[in-house]
Amino acid sequence: MNVFDVNLGERSYPIMIGAGLLSQADLLSPYIKGEQVLVVSNETIAPLYLSKLLSGLDCDLLGSVVLPDGERFKNLEVLNTIFDTLLGDRYDRSCTLIALGGGVVGDMTGFAAACYQRGVNFIQIPTTLLAQVDSSVGGKTAVNHMKGKNMIGAFHQPQCVLIDIEILKTLPEREYRAGLAEVIKYGLITDSAFFCWLEDHMPNLLKREDAALLYAIEHSCRLKAWVVSEDEKEQGLRAILNLGHTFGHAIETQQGYGEWLHGEAVAAGMFMAADLSNRMGWLSDEDLARVSTLISKAELPISPPKIPTETFIALMAVDKKALGGRIRLVLLQGLGKAVVTADYDPSSFERVLSEA
Amino acid sequence: MNVFDVNLGERSYPIMIGAGLLSQADLLSPYIKGEQVLVVSNETIAPLYLSKLLSGLDCDLLGSVVLPDGERFKNLEVLNTIFDTLLGDRYDRSCTLIALGGGVVGDMTGFAAACYQRGVNFIQIPTTLLAQVDSSVGGKTAVNHMKGKNMIGAFHQPQCVLIDIEILKTLPEREYRAGLAEVIKYGLITDSAFFCWLEDHMPNLLKREDAALLYAIEHSCRLKAWVVSEDEKEQGLRAILNLGHTFGHAIETQQGYGEWLHGEAVAAGMFMAADLSNRMGWLSDEDLARVSTLISKAELPISPPKIPTETFIALMAVDKKALGGRIRLVLLQGLGKAVVTADYDPSSFERVLSEA
Repeated sequence: MNVFDVNLGERSYPIMIGAGLLSQADLLSPYIKGEQVLVVSNETIAPLYLSKLLSGLDCDLLGSVVLPDGERFKNLEVLNTIFDTLLGDRYDRSCTLIALGGGVVGDMTGFAAACYQRGVNFIQIPTTLLAQVDSSVGGKTAVNHMKGKNMIGAFHQPQCVLIDIEILKTLPEREYRAGLAEVIKYGLITDSAFFCWLEDHMPNLLKREDAALLYAIEHSCRLKAWVVSEDEKEQGLRAILNLGHTFGHAIETQQGYGEWLHGEAVAAGMFMAADLSNRMGWLSDEDLARVSTLISKAELPISPPKIPTETFIALMAVDKKALGGRIRLVLLQGLGKAVVTADYDPSSFERVLSEA
Repeated sequence: MNVFDVNLGERSYPIMIGAGLLSQADLLSPYIKGEQVLVVSNETIAPLYLSKLLSGLDCDLLGSVVLPDGERFKNLEVLNTIFDTLLGDRYDRSCTLIALGGGVVGDMTGFAAACYQRGVNFIQIPTTLLAQVDSSVGGKTAVNHMKGKNMIGAFHQPQCVLIDIEILKTLPEREYRAGLAEVIKYGLITDSAFFCWLEDHMPNLLKREDAALLYAIEHSCRLKAWVVSEDEKEQGLRAILNLGHTFGHAIETQQGYGEWLHGEAVAAGMFMAADLSNRMGWLSDEDLARVSTLISKAELPISPPKIPTETFIALMAVDKKALGGRIRLVLLQGLGKAVVTADYDPSSFERVLSEA
């Protein structure tokens, strides 16, 4: 098992990564502060792993909530069912919520923990590759609103994160590949050496080999942890983690949550950002081709679905990265070098949208 | 105008208190960070004061949301109507929400500001005595759940608080008196001299005389600000602010929110806490009589409605002050000296409930 800390002062927490960790519930004990634990999972994951987790936990009050599976259930109404259980079963403010699931379960459980009695403890056990490398690090929690994704949420750090790569073996192929989009992102925004490693090891990752998984997940988490520790509340640097996301969220919103997987939308969005960077003269043709090749190797899309340009822009403008009405984007000034800027050529931007 | 700071490190903010401040919207300008302002008010306050406030504000995007008035609308569903407007009108994360109303508007607007895009700026203009001396200081925001009051919320500090005592002149008598309960509370928990001042000046306060109002409100805010600055996240000391509230919340929940005003329930709860303190031998008969007299002078109740003891206990146990299943209470070890304890005689406690 590998362990490393996300450094956030008094909100620091460890990430434990290894194979078969879910059977070792004693790893969690030091991070369960009170005697009350509620595990939140979903209909897909619960039948596979919930009883294994529950059987290892020993506390005065132990319960579970199983949410419907899917991004379209990530809303205030479904969130309220977690509160129904917490209040119905009299969980107090010393309780701990454990998220056992993908990004949706993690985001909702984290937000429930942030809000329940104005904040209770929270542990993440992410079960998808996407959640393991992305939403498990950084403390962002949220639900969606009809008019925008992740628009209602909080920053709330977990006590610890437990990543069991064994669980990835049961992840459906399409979801697994969607997770690779975020792994590629870390190479693109901060670490060209990692980008090269990915070019070399994509076949191993696609076969879900343990050694490749451990390296890619730990490296991704460390890169994200570094960015987050530099900028916990997203005042500056952290925004680079949104590479491809402003485009991607627009795709997800327009298609309806769940039609395009988040990672698929981000993959297309990353290529669009690279494309615009290339048109601005910041990214060479050769590097643009490498981005396209790596995304395609991971069997992910580089083009968005057909969306009228003005609709695309309107959807992007509602995204929270818009500041004072201008759409700020994460663009590349080379592989491994992201910048956040509104200082790009608007007509190039529109051509990226219309010609993609 | 009097101004003083609530000291919370980088989250410090000023409270401005005076007569007629609502007409001086320029007082707010330094605390409006972006160019987008949404004022949230309610159906009672909006017709009286909303246009006056809006006419003084000058920014690129200025809007308002008028919520239905009353504690029973303080829920996730009504909260969502604030998000509907924010997203429908494209407010971004640089926006500022202004709460113009009583505690319900303040709590909901503050919670909306805490959650919208994971946190935006927020200004409080409390329009009831209760909100001016209580919910405007401390950063507690929340909505209710069917099964408990203030169970879903966040700590979110405002940029500033503007208290216009002129607004109190239009406050209905019953609501005004309910606010006096919290003023009395500050004397009871931390400041016996202020308690004596209140014994002397209750007639002036009941007549809403400016000088008495200014003194009582500023003194209450300063006492609360001191407690909050010592313990922002309610880990210890801050719990003394809940004197009477665990009893009071049970009354409100059992009666249905809004039947008993919050201050009325707290008044009865404070006397019950004093009664239990007296039975424990911590508060003299004479001091108990003074508590009873002062509460009655403010024309507030000292007895709860008829509630079966076991129901009362069950309702109190769900309150968030319960820790690990035991009901912790704020009790008095003399006037001006509150303690938080679960170390009281259970049968005395039950007698307080059954004989009240």
